[in-house]
Amino acid sequence: MHLRVILPVLGDSLVEAVRAEVAHWAAPGTRFDVVTLARGTASIESEYDEALAGPGILERVAEAVEDGVDGVFVDCFGDPAVPAAREIAGFPVVGGFEPAVLTALSLGERVGVLTVLPNVVPMLRSLARRHGVETRLGAIEVVNVPVLGLDGEGEALVELLAARGREAVARGQADVLVLGCTGMLGVAEAVRARLADGGAPVPVVDPTAAAVTWLERAHRLGLRPSRTTYLEPPAKHRVP
Amino acid sequence: MHLRVILPVLGDSLVEAVRAEVAHWAAPGTRFDVVTLARGTASIESEYDEALAGPGILERVAEAVEDGVDGVFVDCFGDPAVPAAREIAGFPVVGGFEPAVLTALSLGERVGVLTVLPNVVPMLRSLARRHGVETRLGAIEVVNVPVLGLDGEGEALVELLAARGREAVARGQADVLVLGCTGMLGVAEAVRARLADGGAPVPVVDPTAAAVTWLERAHRLGLRPSRTTYLEPPAKHRVP
Amino acid sequence: MHLRVILPVLGDSLVEAVRAEVAHWAAPGTRFDVVTLARGTASIESEYDEALAGPGILERVAEAVEDGVDGVFVDCFGDPAVPAAREIAGFPVVGGFEPAVLTALSLGERVGVLTVLPNVVPMLRSLARRHGVETRLGAIEVVNVPVLGLDGEGEALVELLAARGREAVARGQADVLVLGCTGMLGVAEAVRARLADGGAPVPVVDPTAAAVTWLERAHRLGLRPSRTTYLEPPAKHRVP
Amino acid sequence: MHLRVILPVLGDSLVEAVRAEVAHWAAPGTRFDVVTLARGTASIESEYDEALAGPGILERVAEAVEDGVDGVFVDCFGDPAVPAAREIAGFPVVGGFEPAVLTALSLGERVGVLTVLPNVVPMLRSLARRHGVETRLGAIEVVNVPVLGLDGEGEALVELLAARGREAVARGQADVLVLGCTGMLGVAEAVRARLADGGAPVPVVDPTAAAVTWLERAHRLGLRPSRTTYLEPPAKHRVP
Amino acid sequence: MHLRVILPVLGDSLVEAVRAEVAHWAAPGTRFDVVTLARGTASIESEYDEALAGPGILERVAEAVEDGVDGVFVDCFGDPAVPAAREIAGFPVVGGFEPAVLTALSLGERVGVLTVLPNVVPMLRSLARRHGVETRLGAIEVVNVPVLGLDGEGEALVELLAARGREAVARGQADVLVLGCTGMLGVAEAVRARLADGGAPVPVVDPTAAAVTWLERAHRLGLRPSRTTYLEPPAKHRVP
Amino acid sequence: MHLRVILPVLGDSLVEAVRAEVAHWAAPGTRFDVVTLARGTASIESEYDEALAGPGILERVAEAVEDGVDGVFVDCFGDPAVPAAREIAGFPVVGGFEPAVLTALSLGERVGVLTVLPNVVPMLRSLARRHGVETRLGAIEVVNVPVLGLDGEGEALVELLAARGREAVARGQADVLVLGCTGMLGVAEAVRARLADGGAPVPVVDPTAAAVTWLERAHRLGLRPSRTTYLEPPAKHRVP
Repeated sequence: MHLRVILPVLGDSLVEAVRAEVAHWAAPGTRFDVVTLARGTASIESEYDEALAGPGILERVAEAVEDGVDGVFVDCFGDPAVPAAREIAGFPVVGGFEPAVLTALSLGERVGVLTVLPNVVPMLRSLARRHGVETRLGAIEVVNVPVLGLDGEGEALVELLAARGREAVARGQADVLVLGCTGMLGVAEAVRARLADGGAPVPVVDPTAAAVTWLERAHRLGLRPSRTTYLEPPAKHRVP
Repeated sequence: MHLRVILPVLGDSLVEAVRAEVAHWAAPGTRFDVVTLARGTASIESEYDEALAGPGILERVAEAVEDGVDGVFVDCFGDPAVPAAREIAGFPVVGGFEPAVLTALSLGERVGVLTVLPNVVPMLRSLARRHGVETRLGAIEVVNVPVLGLDGEGEALVELLAARGREAVARGQADVLVLGCTGMLGVAEAVRARLADGGAPVPVVDPTAAAVTWLERAHRLGLRPSRTTYLEPPAKHRVP
Repeated sequence: MHLRVILPVLGDSLVEAVRAEVAHWAAPGTRFDVVTLARGTASIESEYDEALAGPGILERVAEAVEDGVDGVFVDCFGDPAVPAAREIAGFPVVGGFEPAVLTALSLGERVGVLTVLPNVVPMLRSLARRHGVETRLGAIEVVNVPVLGLDGEGEALVELLAARGREAVARGQADVLVLGCTGMLGVAEAVRARLADGGAPVPVVDPTAAAVTWLERAHRLGLRPSRTTYLEPPAKHRVP
Repeated sequence: MHLRVILPVLGDSLVEAVRAEVAHWAAPGTRFDVVTLARGTASIESEYDEALAGPGILERVAEAVEDGVDGVFVDCFGDPAVPAAREIAGFPVVGGFEPAVLTALSLGERVGVLTVLPNVVPMLRSLARRHGVETRLGAIEVVNVPVLGLDGEGEALVELLAARGREAVARGQADVLVLGCTGMLGVAEAVRARLADGGAPVPVVDPTAAAVTWLERAHRLGLRPSRTTYLEPPAKHRVP
Repeated sequence: MHLRVILPVLGDSLVEAVRAEVAHWAAPGTRFDVVTLARGTASIESEYDEALAGPGILERVAEAVEDGVDGVFVDCFGDPAVPAAREIAGFPVVGGFEPAVLTALSLGERVGVLTVLPNVVPMLRSLARRHGVETRLGAIEVVNVPVLGLDGEGEALVELLAARGREAVARGQADVLVLGCTGMLGVAEAVRARLADGGAPVPVVDPTAAAVTWLERAHRLGLRPSRTTYLEPPAKHRVP
Repeated sequence: MHLRVILPVLGDSLVEAVRAEVAHWAAPGTRFDVVTLARGTASIESEYDEALAGPGILERVAEAVEDGVDGVFVDCFGDPAVPAAREIAGFPVVGGFEPAVLTALSLGERVGVLTVLPNVVPMLRSLARRHGVETRLGAIEVVNVPVLGLDGEGEALVELLAARGREAVARGQADVLVLGCTGMLGVAEAVRARLADGGAPVPVVDPTAAAVTWLERAHRLGLRPSRTTYLEPPAKHRVP
């Protein structure tokens, strides 16, 4: 299977870390490449950033179509441009939110989300309603670290995430936690262990891992987006 | 009040008709201008078109901020880039869906929508869920005319819309109808009259009229978007 | 436009304040008069009061129909007798809840309500469910001041409202606040300013202002209640 | 137990039929009386009629309080003035909708309602949403017979109700039917039998029977309305 | 009426207490017997226990069918095997949850539940969603006493339940309380009185009382489960 | 990975077909075995059958725990005993409904289900509500073939399924279809192709394929059921 990871930001500073993480989760038979955007923003932390990234993402999706890939991961928790991408791709496309949250639904009653900044909380509530799963959504907690600051946090980030998660579990507002930013790389297992030690035995879903394996599975199952939901866009004049 | 209408498409073919319609509905004290996009698509009929239009719209919103306008109407029923625009604007911003549907909620039990192509139906269902009003949403009917073909339809369009609306009312799936494309200019009253004659006495909401007057009213009330929902985007490197 | 304000209480003690407030918000071309009830209660703070006010309100609505007015504002937050009034009026009729809450939906994610007494909290939850918008309803906070005591509170009332609002915002249960009693006259802007100073930058919707301008707008748009939802009552013997 | 039946209409033409029906369903130890209104309407078929009946009903409820009754049935399907009555009564009060629909929820997946005129359909949808049970509500079908015409229909009414019910069951929109007017006296069993013969083996709930026995049961269980939901109305000047 | 109480546990240690409680609530004309299981568990405190009890319960239901009883109470709050029992019984069958919660819906805005162990909280949330009444469900509080320990608690149990209930009411998450275990025998009235003394004037619903009287009422009303929801199971080879 | 497939029926007649299907979908590194029940029913087509199968399934789950397997597929669409199994297993357990429906949610707007008999339709609606995804559930269509008759149908079954699916898509009540019985083995792709040819270009999800790959993925991700939702059952006397 050929998987294209579209990291929907400018610059390559995150590429190596993403490549390592995807490599960690991808199945042996999966070939993948990671691309970034020519137009967009340095990170996505608002509806504004997300909208700016749209054409840059779709440019990369169009290339993926030409390259004959089997699936695309738009590597951002807010699922930017995902419905649009499905309209032009015959193959599965996911962002970070949908595969992680749908996975979490099978693991526990209330799905809590741990994310970066207050800015994205309303976006995530909107996404949950858009998908029709808001009655299962529990707390959304923020660690108040910007996306580009996540990298340097290491152990401190694990502690912050575990602390916020523990509170949500204690208040009865989370039975399973989802890391709500695809930049929180490689910490899910450490957060889970810390929570278990602290009396909060809940699974922690890493959105990158969830997305990569979601696409591999969809590919194996031969499932493609519905053409009565994601119809091909009518042809017209476009200036991207 | 200074109102900026952003027609989120390429080319000026629709500008005069929009200007006339806005002039028809705007209050005496309202000054307005209509701008189109430098980048985007000739019309918006899919999630894809909508995503491509994002940066072009936000460019115009940023100009509106600099020009000190009092409100922005993103003149498309799908509310493209509206949450993003609210993050960077201190003033009210609406698209076509939200003011028309919220208005319709006060007029009847079930809100039906008459729109252009099957492509946009899932977008509209998603929007209704995103706003949390899906239990009041009734039928979404399509006339199967593309946006750019609406203009030449005239009387035939009125008949098509009235026919689809009549069916939705007869099945008990609409008590109030919303025209689901801002390109259906100047036909609402004729559709309403045709429906009333045909035994379906329901109001018909024109999204352009609804949006322009929604903004004027918000201005008069001094209401601006919440800064706990629409936080200012964190500063960062951007290549639009 | 001719607007009739029905203050659904006995006695004229509030009339001047209401007149001033409506005058403050009404458009230049709007003519209005304020009437009170011959039968009803001194204030509305329960389902009981609301039910007692019904026939008195409908009497005034019938007069408004005869007088050929263009819209009626039943000046109470609980929307007493509003569906009934729509059945007998061909023109728009609103109370305080519906225009304020629908307006608030366009301003932020969660709508909080600041109201007078615990007695009305269940009524407001019921109203939100009745309108199908309960997933967007956040906290309902009470200041524990009866309606007829609001008048003398002045600055103290502003402080109380801001304090309750600040708590709701801090708990993440309000992104926009609605004043949940039409007797909280003329304080919305002061409450908003106090909240902004206190780190809670959220809009505050005044129900009187929202209602008056909602009706003016409906009139301009030529929108009337749906006759498949609000059918004319069948003729019959009545002893009001 | 002492039960007061408030038939919320003018005139005594329905009293004997109601008395017979209540006597049929009441337990041996239940004593009851039937009263009508001094003010109100000849029948209730709209929000307007319902609002006009409010004070007349509450007058009778106040008498019931003085008379020391143990429960009140407001004998109309739309539950007129029921929340208000609970505020002033320490004992259980129900209308026709709530006990019939809550009973139906335990009998089958989708609750269909058979009612009189299109006028009341939106009222019933609103009631279902108000009670938070709208996901279980199926079809609402009308027989187009006014309340005061039900009496003379006899066998024809049974046939009409069975025909509408059969259609709702066949479309998969009803697994249990509720007679949606308390004036449809004594026909539930015949409708059920007719439906069973016609291949629609669903229970049919009579609202009068449901209400009378609901109150008897509440009395036996010693259950009274919550005083945090139905608080006593604050004292004030009232002109009923 | 002949009522069969199926206490879905092994051993007779609870039988006498159940018999006394049922006798306390049953109407004079009701004859009842209490049976326990030949296969199952000593108490039901998990989905696991509930699943193990299934065939043992259905065995007793089949006997009840043969014995020609008029109704079955599966005496456990989680409603174990109730939908299955309805498929094979022509008569009404209830557990503890459904009659208690539907009754509570008519008494107050938010239904709180007081139950035994954290283990059953997710089961109860699932049940509320299954019945479609989750928007009315408030807090679920646990006393952390296992079912088989309830018996010896007496006054201490009343105090525990009242304390948990008081907190839920104070937080605005309960207006009516349901005892969430049918083993909390004979304490409802004492809990209610304690709560009223402590400023929380809310009704308390005993699930045994609610169930017994629900069945008596269904019998009197001649209501049986819908055969389009609870169809007879197709014949086949079975090894129970 | 070691996967245990529990075919929750008596007799081995379906084992070979299941084994072939699982082998078809399982990843190279997956080892699996298929077991049937010692107690239960010949097929599961009702709540009754499902309840009877409970202890037999849990017996097999307990063996799976002892055998140290990595995941269990309870091979029936109704997810029998799945929550109970999660309580006693530390590893992932799924039935047919949950993985298929969660997968379908990512493929299109409305999820339609094609199933065997009318008997199971209410079970599936209940399951959708239990999972909180009912707003995305579209039509449930039945082919009226019992589970044990599916095997011999071959091409006729494909045609039946495609016909029912086509109707649901045409009515706008399905954008993605789920085969609603795990006995519909090996037909999903043929149904999809038939639908595409007939103008209904929607994906078709096979529940066996969805479940097997869901478990493999959960294993790879190291995700286990939440212990705050699925707590270990308290120890007690049990007679299975």
